Amino acid sequence: VDRLLDSVKWDNKGLAVAIAQNVDTGAILMQGFANRDALATTISSRKATFYSRSRSTLWTKGETSQNFINVQDIFLDCDRDSIIYLGKPDGPTCHTGSETCYYTSVLDALKDQPVGSFISLAHTAVLFGIPESELDSSDRFKEIIWQ
Amino acid sequence: VDRLLDSVKWDNKGLAVAIAQNVDTGAILMQGFANRDALATTISSRKATFYSRSRSTLWTKGETSQNFINVQDIFLDCDRDSIIYLGKPDGPTCHTGSETCYYTSVLDALKDQPVGSFISLAHTAVLFGIPESELDSSDRFKEIIWQ
Repeated sequence: VDRLLDSVKWDNKGLAVAIAQNVDTGAILMQGFANRDALATTISSRKATFYSRSRSTLWTKGETSQNFINVQDIFLDCDRDSIIYLGKPDGPTCHTGSETCYYTSVLDALKDQPVGSFISLAHTAVLFGIPESELDSSDRFKEIIWQ
Repeated sequence: VDRLLDSVKWDNKGLAVAIAQNVDTGAILMQGFANRDALATTISSRKATFYSRSRSTLWTKGETSQNFINVQDIFLDCDRDSIIYLGKPDGPTCHTGSETCYYTSVLDALKDQPVGSFISLAHTAVLFGIPESELDSSDRFKEIIWQ
């Protein structure tokens, strides 16, 4: 494990980007940062664990909410400075109760929709594993109220 | 657009994490950083554009390889400091010719497999939009040679 942890290109603060992805749907759930201890903890506990830059401490997603992300695999990118935690979430990942923290469409916001009130059907299709080819293009930006 | 760009919580270097995701398969293709200009360029050109920290310049994925990522939507996370470029890639995103830069499984590497020679079927299922429930658990870590 030490050799693996040594092979990650930690930045000058000892961090790498860590992205949590739902293994069943492909949805990107959240993004944080990992240091060596956070990755080691994720490998041993199989619960997605990050390093909080604001609190200067490790934190395991779900330690408060019980909505853990149960990690089934971990991927490094080609230059070994970015990490995917691929797992099954126990419940909504976002503190708002949303499945994912990424519910705000920039392009919808620019259409003068209230920011955050709409989510594109294309992204919803990804969230629920529906091939985009099954969607009518007219449905792609169908309104879906999330709050 | 300016108001939207102002609403992003750029870090003290003016950057936010930017993740490119395949709209059809959900695969995370690559991760880079965006500054205000990179996000503005992506919004106007609909080609995933990043800020290179090593070269201190904007770069559009595909400007050399022609493997552009054609952005269909852009998502911000709940605290507005992380961005998803959701798009259709024209070809392999990774400079190695791989569909995604994330082909190295940490957990496979820790099983003493040669690093980078194996990719878990669970992740492959995500890449190709196959529900993981359709896989035999015995197949989950089936060998797939990627190079």
